Formats: sequence, C-alpha cells, structure tokens
Amino acid sequence: MPGYTAPTRDMQFVLHDVLKVTQTGIPGYDELERDVTEAVLAAAGKVASEVLAPLNPVGDRIGCVLENGVVRTPEGFKDAFAAMKDGGWTSLDCDPAYGGQGMPYLLATAVGEMFVSANMAFNMYQGLAHGAYSAIHAHGTAEQKATYLPGLVRCDWTGTMNLTEPHCGTDLGLMRTRAEPQDDGSYRITGQKIFISAGEHDLAGNIIHLVLARAPGGGEGTRGVSLFIVPKLLVNGDGSLGARNAVSCGKIEQKMGIHGNATCVMDYDGATGWLLGDLHKGMRAMFTMMNEARLGVGLQGYAVGEAAYQNAAIYARERLQGRAVTGAQNPGGPADPLIVHPDVRRMLMDQKSFLEGARAFTFWGAHLIDRSRRCGDAEAEGLVSLMTPVLKGFLTDKGFETAVTAQQIFGGHGYIEDSGMSQFTRDARIAMIYEGANGIQALDLVGRKLAQDGGRHVMAFFEMVKTFLKENEGDAALKAGFLDPLKAASKDLQAAAMFFMQNGVKTPDAALAGSYDFMHLFGHVCLGLMWARMGRAAMAALAAGAPDRAFLEAKLATGRYYMARQLPMTATHLARIRSGADPVMALPAEAF
Amino acid sequence: MPGYTAPTRDMQFVLHDVLKVTQTGIPGYDELERDVTEAVLAAAGKVASEVLAPLNPVGDRIGCVLENGVVRTPEGFKDAFAAMKDGGWTSLDCDPAYGGQGMPYLLATAVGEMFVSANMAFNMYQGLAHGAYSAIHAHGTAEQKATYLPGLVRCDWTGTMNLTEPHCGTDLGLMRTRAEPQDDGSYRITGQKIFISAGEHDLAGNIIHLVLARAPGGGEGTRGVSLFIVPKLLVNGDGSLGARNAVSCGKIEQKMGIHGNATCVMDYDGATGWLLGDLHKGMRAMFTMMNEARLGVGLQGYAVGEAAYQNAAIYARERLQGRAVTGAQNPGGPADPLIVHPDVRRMLMDQKSFLEGARAFTFWGAHLIDRSRRCGDAEAEGLVSLMTPVLKGFLTDKGFETAVTAQQIFGGHGYIEDSGMSQFTRDARIAMIYEGANGIQALDLVGRKLAQDGGRHVMAFFEMVKTFLKENEGDAALKAGFLDPLKAASKDLQAAAMFFMQNGVKTPDAALAGSYDFMHLFGHVCLGLMWARMGRAAMAALAAGAPDRAFLEAKLATGRYYMARQLPMTATHLARIRSGADPVMALPAEAF
Repeated sequence: MPGYTAPTRDMQFVLHDVLKVTQTGIPGYDELERDVTEAVLAAAGKVASEVLAPLNPVGDRIGCVLENGVVRTPEGFKDAFAAMKDGGWTSLDCDPAYGGQGMPYLLATAVGEMFVSANMAFNMYQGLAHGAYSAIHAHGTAEQKATYLPGLVRCDWTGTMNLTEPHCGTDLGLMRTRAEPQDDGSYRITGQKIFISAGEHDLAGNIIHLVLARAPGGGEGTRGVSLFIVPKLLVNGDGSLGARNAVSCGKIEQKMGIHGNATCVMDYDGATGWLLGDLHKGMRAMFTMMNEARLGVGLQGYAVGEAAYQNAAIYARERLQGRAVTGAQNPGGPADPLIVHPDVRRMLMDQKSFLEGARAFTFWGAHLIDRSRRCGDAEAEGLVSLMTPVLKGFLTDKGFETAVTAQQIFGGHGYIEDSGMSQFTRDARIAMIYEGANGIQALDLVGRKLAQDGGRHVMAFFEMVKTFLKENEGDAALKAGFLDPLKAASKDLQAAAMFFMQNGVKTPDAALAGSYDFMHLFGHVCLGLMWARMGRAAMAALAAGAPDRAFLEAKLATGRYYMARQLPMTATHLARIRSGADPVMALPAEAF
Repeated sequence: MPGYTAPTRDMQFVLHDVLKVTQTGIPGYDELERDVTEAVLAAAGKVASEVLAPLNPVGDRIGCVLENGVVRTPEGFKDAFAAMKDGGWTSLDCDPAYGGQGMPYLLATAVGEMFVSANMAFNMYQGLAHGAYSAIHAHGTAEQKATYLPGLVRCDWTGTMNLTEPHCGTDLGLMRTRAEPQDDGSYRITGQKIFISAGEHDLAGNIIHLVLARAPGGGEGTRGVSLFIVPKLLVNGDGSLGARNAVSCGKIEQKMGIHGNATCVMDYDGATGWLLGDLHKGMRAMFTMMNEARLGVGLQGYAVGEAAYQNAAIYARERLQGRAVTGAQNPGGPADPLIVHPDVRRMLMDQKSFLEGARAFTFWGAHLIDRSRRCGDAEAEGLVSLMTPVLKGFLTDKGFETAVTAQQIFGGHGYIEDSGMSQFTRDARIAMIYEGANGIQALDLVGRKLAQDGGRHVMAFFEMVKTFLKENEGDAALKAGFLDPLKAASKDLQAAAMFFMQNGVKTPDAALAGSYDFMHLFGHVCLGLMWARMGRAAMAALAAGAPDRAFLEAKLATGRYYMARQLPMTATHLARIRSGADPVMALPAEAF
C-alpha cells in the first residue's frame, strides 16, 4: 500500500527562506513564525499520513454507492471526516466571525497540499464546503451568511457547485435550468445538473448546493444566468433543519478515478432556492471565486504527483534490478537498486524538480491572493489573475505527467492496482479537465488575461523577472546554473507575447493556435523564476551556516536540473507558437 | 459507445504510394496488388468494426474471472474468437507448411493494427498464440513444430511468454524458476511466474506456455537460463490432448486496463516441459523474436491512440460548444461545433499527424522485417534492430499521449467510463511498460544498438536521410514544409549521437542520462522522414492527377503540421542530452 510523508521541511523552506512570510507586512503573516508553521504542518502531516492516506486505496476500491437516493461513502470516510472537523482542519482560513480561525490562505494551502496528496477524493468533500463558504461569504446577505456559514465552516454541512448540464459544459450560455421567482422572494429551481462532485453523500447533516440557473428577464447566453442557494434540507429560522428540498441525486457516475468522491447527476424538481448575489450576475459571482478554485485544482495536480513521486522514490531505492553501468553499487546483494540507473534518476529528477518548483509557485500564488485580500493590493490581484490559468493548466498537465512517470518506475507492478500507482495516475487525470479544461485555461490566458488592464500584469511579470536578474547579476555562483537559463526562457516568453501582439488582432486564430504552448511556456518561466529564487535562498542559507547543508545542497542540485533539462522546452513552445495558425487550421472539418 | 472505422485509405496510401510494395522485389510482395490489399483490409476492417469494437467496452467492464482454477473471459469473447479463427485471421503470415497463409508480415501488421484499435485486450489472445508460434517455428525441432504449430496457427491453442517473477522483471538474471532434467529428456519445471498475459482462459483447447527457467550447469545470471515448452494439457503422440500438466493459474491481477485479457500468476509445480532451442541459450531464443514482438507493442501504442482519435474527431465535429473567435460557423445552431476552436484543432492535429506518421513508420519496420526474412538482407535486419527500441518506446509514449489528448477533447465526459475514452487511456498505458519498459528500450538503443556492428546501422540511417534530402533538393514544393525541418532534426540527431561517442566511453552515465531523450529524438526524426516521404508521395499522386485530391491535400497539410509543430522537439531533446550526466546524477540516493 502506498504511503505518504508530509514534505514539511520543503514547505518550511518555501515559507521562510523564499517567501520570508513574516517580513511581508501582510496582516496575519506576522503570526507565521517558523515554529508556528512547523507545528501546524507537523500536525496536519500526521493527519494526512495516519488518517487520510490509508483510506486512499480503500476509497478507490470501494467507491461510492447510491441506494434509494442515499449515497454511501467508502468505509472509514465518516470517521476520518469527523477527525478532520474535530481537529479544526476545515476552518483554518475561514472568517472568525463565523467560527473560522482566520489564518492566511497560504497556510491553508500548505495544509491542503498534504491532505490532497494523502487522499484527493476525500479532501474534495471539505474543499467543496470551502468553495460554498467562499461564495456565500463574498456574495451573501448578512442573513444568508448567518444561516449558512457556521455549518460550512465546521463542515457540519458541505457544499456543491452546479454549473454543468448534459448539453453544456464550457459554454454555460446554453444553460437550461430555470429559476422561477416566488412571491416570498424565493425561487423554484428546475433542471438537471451533471458532474456534481460531492452532490450527495453521508458525511454531513446538510448539503448547500450553489446552482447556476436562468431567471426570467435576463436575456440570452450567460448574461441571463444567476446563482442560487439550494439547500438539501431547508434551514428553519432558528437554524434547525427543516423539510427536504426537491433536489435529489439521480445517478452516480462511474469514473476513471477519484472514486471516493461521489460525482452526481442532480435533479432539481422545483426546488426552493434563494438568489445569491445580484440577479443575472451569476457568472460574475462565480468568477470572483475562480482564482482560488483554480489554484486549488492546480494544487491537486502536483499534490497527487507528490504522493506518486514519494512512493516511486522508495521503490527505486529498494527494488533490486540490474547493475550500475559504472560498477556494482550493492556488491553484496543480488543486484543494485533501481536508483543507480541514470534513466531512473532522470525520471525521479523530472518529478522532484517539477514538484518542488510547483509548490513554490503555488505558495507564491496563495501569498498573492492573501496580499490582494488582506492588503487590498490590486497589483497582486492582477498578477495572480494572470497566473491563475498557468497555475491550473500547467501544474495539472505536469502533475499528471509526474504521476505517470512515477508509475513507470514500478514497471509492471505499477499497472497492477495493488501498488496504488495506477490510482495516482487515474486521480490526477481529472485535474486537467474540471474547473475549466486546460484548453480553456490557455484561452483565458491568451484571449483575456494577457491584455487585461492594458497588458499591465504581464508587463509587471516581465519586470519582476528583469529585476530579479539585475539584482543578482553579480552573483557568479547563481549565474550559469540559474540566471542564464531563466534569462533565455524569459526572452522566449516575451518573444511569444510579442508574436501574439503583432498577429493576434488581425488573425485571432494565430494567437489561439499557440495558446496552449504559451501556457506551458509561461509555466516553465514561472518555475524557472521559482527555482532561481530557491537557488538564491539556498545559497544564502548555506552562506549563513545553516545546519541542514545536505537539504540545501539537494535543493541547488534539483534546481540546476530543472534549469538544464526542463527549461529548454521554452524554445520548442516558441517555435510552435511562431508557426502560427496555418498548420493548425489548414484542414476542413471533414478531413478529420 | 465508441466506434471504430478502419483507416483503409490511409493504409493503402502507405502500402502503395509510399512503400510501393509491389516494386520492392521482396518474395510474396508481388501478390500485394492494390485491389488485393484493398479487399483484405476491407474484410479485416469489417471484423474489427462489427465484431471486435463492440466487445471492447464489454471486456473492460466485465473483465476476466478466476473460479476454481478456471478463467472465464468476458461475455462474447468466445464467439468473437471463433469468428476470428473461421475468417482465417489468425494465420495470415504463418508458414503454409503448418496451415498458415504465408502472407507478408507487413500485411499481417496492417490487419493487426485494425484488430488492436478495435479491441486491444481481445487481440492479445491471438497475439500471444502468434508469439509462441514464432518462437517454436524459429527454434523448435521438426517434431515440436509438427506437434504444436498447427494448433497455434489455427488458434485452436494459444500461447504465453513466461519471463517475469515476483522479484525479477527487467533483470532476468535473478530468475529462480528451476528446470530439472528427467530421464526421458523432458524437464520438471518449478517456480512462479507473474504478469502472464492470457495465462489461463476459456478461448482455446490448450495453452502452450513458453517458460524461461534455470537448468543445472548453466551458471549464474542470464547465461544459465533456458526456454521450455510447457503445455497446459500434454499432447499425445497422435496429436490428441492428454493429461493436465502441473501448471495452474493462482491469481488474476486487477489492472489499470486491458481488463479483457487475463493477466495471470502462473504456478509451475513440477510441470513437464521440453527444451526449446539450445540449453542455456534461452535468452538468445527470446531475443530473436524481440524485433517482431516489440514492433507489435509499438503498434499497440498508436493503434489504441487511433481508436481514441477517431472518437475524439467525431465528438469535436458534433458537440456544440462556444463560438468561433472569427465569427459563428453554425449560426443557425445554439453554438458552433468544438472543432472550430483552434486549441481543439491543435489537439486533433497532434493526434492525426502522429498517428499517420506512426503507421508509416511501423509499416516500414514490418517491411524491413519481411526484407530481412524473405531476402536474407542483413542490412534490413540491422536497420530494423536499430529502430526496434524507437518503434516500441516512442510510439507507445506518444500513443498514450494521443489517447490522453483524445480523452481531453471530451471534457468531463471523457473522465466518465460511459464515453469509453478512459479505457483507451488506461489500455494504452500498459504498452509503455511491458515487453521491456520504455526506459529499457532507451538503454537498448543507446547502450547496444547504436554501436552494434561498429555503428554501421545508425550510419546507414543517416545516409538514408541524406540521400533522401539530396534526391529531392530541387523540389521547391517539398523544401520549406518538409525537407528543411527534416534536415534540421536529423542534424540534431547526429549531434546527439556525436555527443554519446565523445562522452559515452569515459562517462557511460552521460550517454545513459540522455538515452530517453535520444529515443524520442530518434523517433521524431523517423516520423519526420516518414512525413517527408509521404509528402513526396502525395505530391506525386496529385501531379499524376489522382482522383482523391482532398485526401492527398489533407495528407500534405497533416505532414506540414508535424514538421512545423512536432519536429522542433528535437532541439529540446538535444539540449537535454548535452547537459550530460551531472544534473541527473548529482543527488545522493537518500536525497530523494
């Protein structure tokens, strides 16, 4: 059975050596002293390793069962969910006014990585509660907040997001679910929603569905769509639970992975709902939560990859097979461990260098979200908006690749479900699809975010890279391994952006044909920047005589690997982008 | 439910316009007239679409069941297997002396692609019968051939390959299964083998196991290993079936995919076996079948990708979602089809351009195998040996990627098992692992094949590319789209080979650290060469006034896409290779 060990040391390095959280001046960050975060991460890591990880293969094997409208989660999920609640893990960054602990989103992100690594499907139940919490907290009336938030914060109740219908996924303008206004100010919601994660289950006393639907007078397309609160059980004025609402789970989908989470077809049959936020502005309400939600999915991508990697590394150290080409390394044994073989090393280094870069990138993004929220910093908000599609698209693509590579190290054993490696691959696959398929992320990046606010945010990003390079140009130790590759990659990114500016207006297809490559090119530059910062931080710590030299030296070697072996991809992405729309669009539809 | 249509037109193009099979002078190829292959491919395509494809999701859903030592294949497999036998599809390229039809391996490869696309797990039963046929045909005594081949050719019996044991996969030198010689010339085989595809099932009257085991006096490691024939039911002198042998299936593995094929743990408990080939030369006997077996797995990689692609293309044409950025293409409908979106096109073109290149590459490889066998051409044998790890490793990696991309086009529906797209991804995954994991292919390529016969074969390959470029240098239409990119990619490949020559001897790790990238670099150059040849052939056909202009124009556009958007990867692979061993090997094992 696969195991999981929380990478606390790596997280501490990002928080304190790279982001230097206590020096940021962000309200609440002053509490994130090294020993505080150490204690929180250690405690969360214990829950992840001891409670959640053992249930991961159980959830995959048993899955969820729908019987007479009731969904049963896998054996052990109820107890684990109770343990999460009791430990206060569901309310870390929630508003103290509603029972939350008011900690930075960054800290919740670090803890979230551990829980996702340990058991992605399980963690989605509380993740969706948190999503509903965020939506109601941002857009609800005082009464709605008082009614729904405490239950969601404690995870006595969970939440859902209802967007997709059978005939409309990405294109929500096609939505058919109707909301009819009632005299008492409520709405009657009628329609079918599909792919509703945690739509029905037995872990919580109530489920607060957030449903996009079309109310009269809103016009065609997405403009006419509003967001509604539709609780499974109606909540009485005194907060007690009342009658069952007219919403039910019609079916559970059989999926490739995340079997432990119930993906439901939800039927709304004149269910009672209440408008959340402004009428006909439902899409806007959804969008305000998008940075956080998409960062959360990007995190899923690499966090599952992290769990897969850890198990692959152990296997590579323990499994004896073949001899090192440079001479036996384990002469007393029947063979050398897999890890002596250069190509096995390559696979491990690909994983490790991506994962550590992805963690830094995600933590940096979470820190920008805190900065924008807690300091009202519009620049931080703009920057993280720009990078959100990269965080989601790049990290989930590469996270899946990481899981596949980890599985590969196990050889045939990786294909057998017993090893648990197949589950990581199957689970990681969904993150590339949901919360906006990765092609949509690329479209958002190139079609929307690049030019947002007059292109100010992408210019700010380039400026930041330039400043970093300039600040460190005298550092000979950093130059060849880190600065030069970052400079080259950043140049490729600028050239690609320039290509879009020159061609995008007269040939929009030319920009969109290169959008996916641009997203990956951007992702590599972001990870390159993260590695350059980590490289500098590691060198600084070594120079300051930090005691854990082996850890810091490994950090430097891992960074050099990323720069030498992954960053050269930017040239290929640029070449593809520059080939423009013609090769992509040449064929008539019937030629496929 | 996913469908499948045999790409007969594409296959005919490769056979007749590119390979020009009837002009090759290979014995038997003169029979492969255009109308003959058209008829064979059409008939095979009908079986694939109508008999095998409908069973593919059934096999995935039901899987195989072991009860009281008997394995039951999924519903419908028995009838389909009977239909395959009755149609003569199992014996196409087998020796007429034993009931085969004596057709070229190339034709069997084309037919095999269809069967694998339609139902990979099902086709493995006959594939393994063919493997056992090939082994006994190559190494058996006249008596062994007479005893076993007719049953295998007709697929009244099937076969297996028993290599892996729980503690040894790649490193067969660790093998423990014992063979004790008996007075009557037979051996008693004792040990456990795992991951035995088609190890036990209900489709055939007998199963002929080929088992690697250690007979006394052979020494340590792989030198002491011999190959044995161990039939499930002993065969009497008159050809009738006799007593049950002491071999049994102890367990069926639960796997990520290919559920329709029984992957068995096989227990040999003093089973009676007969030496096949020379004593202590079992590895060599296995190796003589390796080119064919590995080409067959490479074929699986892209053939499953082909099926996935076909369904993605249909979905992209039919699913209405969003509007084209350049203006509505389906103004009368609620939305445009997915295929109008440039990033969906990119995904389809990535798939299509890879698949058609992969088919040409595989057919070329099969043609070289025919040439080596039927003409005793050592150059052809050397060339296909060199390219075998590329065919296996590159095509299965990219075939899996193709299946993943096809699944992506379905959005959330691709993650739901109902769509069938998950199965393609899960099935394609195994091809990267078995028959030598792809890292082993890369090791074989760089550690063995490159330098084989003094490096003659890789030089021959470079010479072939050079000759092609020279022959066509005056062709302005071919130059920018095909010749220039091929030249650049081939230069990268030569530079990489040069790097290995200069560094490989003093630093073997430097070559091996780049081996995987070299395999992919080589694969791209091979597909680039194929596309250049296909480009030339399509232009020639157009110039000659061929009637199907749309098909030929699409071929050219698809080729230009591959050259413009895929071939630039060679530069990244070269950069990685040149970074050498240091970044890969820098960390101590405990740092992972």
